[in-house]
Amino acid sequence: MSEKTVPYKIYLEEHEMPTKWYNVRADMKNKPAPLIHPGTKAPMTAAELEGVFCAELVKQELDDTTAYFDIPAEILSFYKMYRPAPLVRAYCLEEKLQTPAKIYYKFEGNNTSGSHKLNSAIAQAYYAKQQGLKGVTTETGAGQWGTALSMACAYLGLDLKVFMVKSSYEQKPYRREVMRTYGASVTPSPSSDTEVGKKILSDFPGTSGSLGCAISEAVEVAVTTEGYRYVLGSVLAQVLLHQSIIGLEAKAAMDKYGIKPDIIIGCAGGGSNLGGLIAPFIGEKLRGEADYHFIAVEPASCPTFTRGTYAYDFCDTGMICPLAKMYTLGSGFMPAPEHAGGLRFHGMSSTLSQLYDDGLMEARAVGQTEIFAAAQQFARSEGILPAPESSHAIKGAIDEALKCKETGEEKTILFGLSGTGYFDMGAYEKYNDGLMTDYIPTDDDLAKGFAGIPK
Amino acid sequence: MSEKTVPYKIYLEEHEMPTKWYNVRADMKNKPAPLIHPGTKAPMTAAELEGVFCAELVKQELDDTTAYFDIPAEILSFYKMYRPAPLVRAYCLEEKLQTPAKIYYKFEGNNTSGSHKLNSAIAQAYYAKQQGLKGVTTETGAGQWGTALSMACAYLGLDLKVFMVKSSYEQKPYRREVMRTYGASVTPSPSSDTEVGKKILSDFPGTSGSLGCAISEAVEVAVTTEGYRYVLGSVLAQVLLHQSIIGLEAKAAMDKYGIKPDIIIGCAGGGSNLGGLIAPFIGEKLRGEADYHFIAVEPASCPTFTRGTYAYDFCDTGMICPLAKMYTLGSGFMPAPEHAGGLRFHGMSSTLSQLYDDGLMEARAVGQTEIFAAAQQFARSEGILPAPESSHAIKGAIDEALKCKETGEEKTILFGLSGTGYFDMGAYEKYNDGLMTDYIPTDDDLAKGFAGIPK
Repeated sequence: MSEKTVPYKIYLEEHEMPTKWYNVRADMKNKPAPLIHPGTKAPMTAAELEGVFCAELVKQELDDTTAYFDIPAEILSFYKMYRPAPLVRAYCLEEKLQTPAKIYYKFEGNNTSGSHKLNSAIAQAYYAKQQGLKGVTTETGAGQWGTALSMACAYLGLDLKVFMVKSSYEQKPYRREVMRTYGASVTPSPSSDTEVGKKILSDFPGTSGSLGCAISEAVEVAVTTEGYRYVLGSVLAQVLLHQSIIGLEAKAAMDKYGIKPDIIIGCAGGGSNLGGLIAPFIGEKLRGEADYHFIAVEPASCPTFTRGTYAYDFCDTGMICPLAKMYTLGSGFMPAPEHAGGLRFHGMSSTLSQLYDDGLMEARAVGQTEIFAAAQQFARSEGILPAPESSHAIKGAIDEALKCKETGEEKTILFGLSGTGYFDMGAYEKYNDGLMTDYIPTDDDLAKGFAGIPK
Repeated sequence: MSEKTVPYKIYLEEHEMPTKWYNVRADMKNKPAPLIHPGTKAPMTAAELEGVFCAELVKQELDDTTAYFDIPAEILSFYKMYRPAPLVRAYCLEEKLQTPAKIYYKFEGNNTSGSHKLNSAIAQAYYAKQQGLKGVTTETGAGQWGTALSMACAYLGLDLKVFMVKSSYEQKPYRREVMRTYGASVTPSPSSDTEVGKKILSDFPGTSGSLGCAISEAVEVAVTTEGYRYVLGSVLAQVLLHQSIIGLEAKAAMDKYGIKPDIIIGCAGGGSNLGGLIAPFIGEKLRGEADYHFIAVEPASCPTFTRGTYAYDFCDTGMICPLAKMYTLGSGFMPAPEHAGGLRFHGMSSTLSQLYDDGLMEARAVGQTEIFAAAQQFARSEGILPAPESSHAIKGAIDEALKCKETGEEKTILFGLSGTGYFDMGAYEKYNDGLMTDYIPTDDDLAKGFAGIPK
């Protein structure tokens, strides 16, 4: 191999690391619609939200005009433990694909939680601690968010109660043990610990749970337990704010070497990785300073952007949370047991939904066998074993690189590699054994979900 | 937290990365004893060794005078994919321990194989490829080596046949799947694929295997299959040579900030991580240029240094490999099912054995419950979930840091964090549930192993 002008991996120096988060809503002309009260349909007030969320996080959630928020010193210290995340030039993948495209990825899997989730977990835990709370509750699906939060809470000495979607709890006992190693208590959801859990268990006996259901349980415990609040790992505007560190670092690393991406690709579940990655770039686009082609890649089994509808809907199955305006398949939509557990949420970040509705992003849905083929190809050339979720972005990047091969264009592609797949080897085993199938919901399946969306 | 003068993590720039490996034997006055033929007891010749190993690796194995070997360009390219590994200042652990000591660790777990093993895997696979071989065979215990080699072979397009100790094969199906994802074939050992495997199965029906037995099988397949050679992930001098990249990078990073360690600590199984970490430092000590206190930490269940004997012994159970002079418990010693699977080898690198025998290192043995307590404490403060093997070094570092707390000394401690524990959650579960016990062999247990050492 010849000498490369751009290194394989760009690590920012500590003094080059971002010290502020960027709030993309400040630059949006069409602001995301506010959260509304499920009863009155009036926008949720700070006071109402503070029953569920920490006060400082509510402030961030409601603020759609302040462009930059200082990152508190203690969070910066924690970030320094596992960040900066490398921006990697995929020289080996490029060579395998024989593409003239230049492929970069921002790798967020180099920490024990195995994903970018830690970026918001430490922020949310920090504000909870500052408020003098005893602990927080949350839900986790694939387990990345629960793991990240357990690490953050261990660091700060906060209690943590995790409701883990029952199917994940059973399929991924080792995820559960990681959380326990960091001191969290982990309950399979639905559980009989909550009223909403009991109701779901009686309405759907034998259910293996869903993210929406686990959210309902975690919220119920938070609002009924003294000194506790609820925290959420995706969807919310505050999460996208914290995750902007991904894009800010990626942009700083690219700017350092004079690189400008043409295409930016992220996997899309609730929107935390995609929203964080694209934040500063779409900010430039919104301000008319630069143009980029943004692509969201989602699972065909849970096609929120590509087959969903843009409407006010519940974020949880128990319908106890505020309504959010978003692309949604309906809170009652039960996605098939696809392996990218982190992308199985029925809704989508309101911010990303508005950007998508305004025509600022493209979205694609891909079946999981194609996703695992891309994951394997990536692992064998770049060495990193990707999470199924992250592999959606890989698939998007490979497809774009192969287009460049056809046209001869030397486009620069940036994608978000949100995490690693160490706890997904059951899924890889299925793929290795040729036993993986695709789940594509029928129009009838979708209609059932849509029917539950409030008018 | 106040501003830190040394960053949390020191990453070398690409141009600062070592381009040569260091061969510590060149600076040893008392050279490690040569491998000898089990029949004739004469030193193994290059021609004899080339039936088992690749020619270039045999050259490295036999060369105890050349101090530096150029790292081939293709290996440097591969290194750039996952290296430099960070040198981390354990600010958070120091704070939790309230110690005046300054603790650094060289973290080798930031790659998919989850350990330092990849450093030698890519080198050995490269030389096999250069020699025009079709494939290689190997054994794996805990799975790190097999995973690393499968990544290296996938990258270079070499076939790989792994014999995995049966107990690990069954306890760690996900390790197996990682190797399969990278295209390796994985066979539980002992197997009926080899003569030696069949013999062991008939002599010890129901055995769950051992590293020594898996080595015998892998060697047999290599020497009886056209176009194949055998590769080994530890113990050998060539492995320590490749692993010197760990110490060379650590030293370069420390030199950059004017840091000089007082104490250097590594976990000791076959010696690959410890030997690699200490290489350039012990080189300075051997040349009389500097002094350091070296500490090897091994499991109490397999106490090679602390309770073994220094003698010529077989490296494998089947007794088909050359004899090596080393600290050993006897090739028939069957360590208890302790969780640090990577440290369960009955022998030890001849190079490290000689250094230890010359009084240049200290060694300690620790039981696994204490090791997991240290692992948990480390995980909760530094965020990284360590492998049980690596946690031996953590335990050594914590103990030294606590001594500094008592005496008030501000010693600088460097330890090797060889890898991550994502595939060891079964062991963590046992620890979390309070079900872990220690295995300390009795003198009688040891006597049985010693009885098998050839006179």
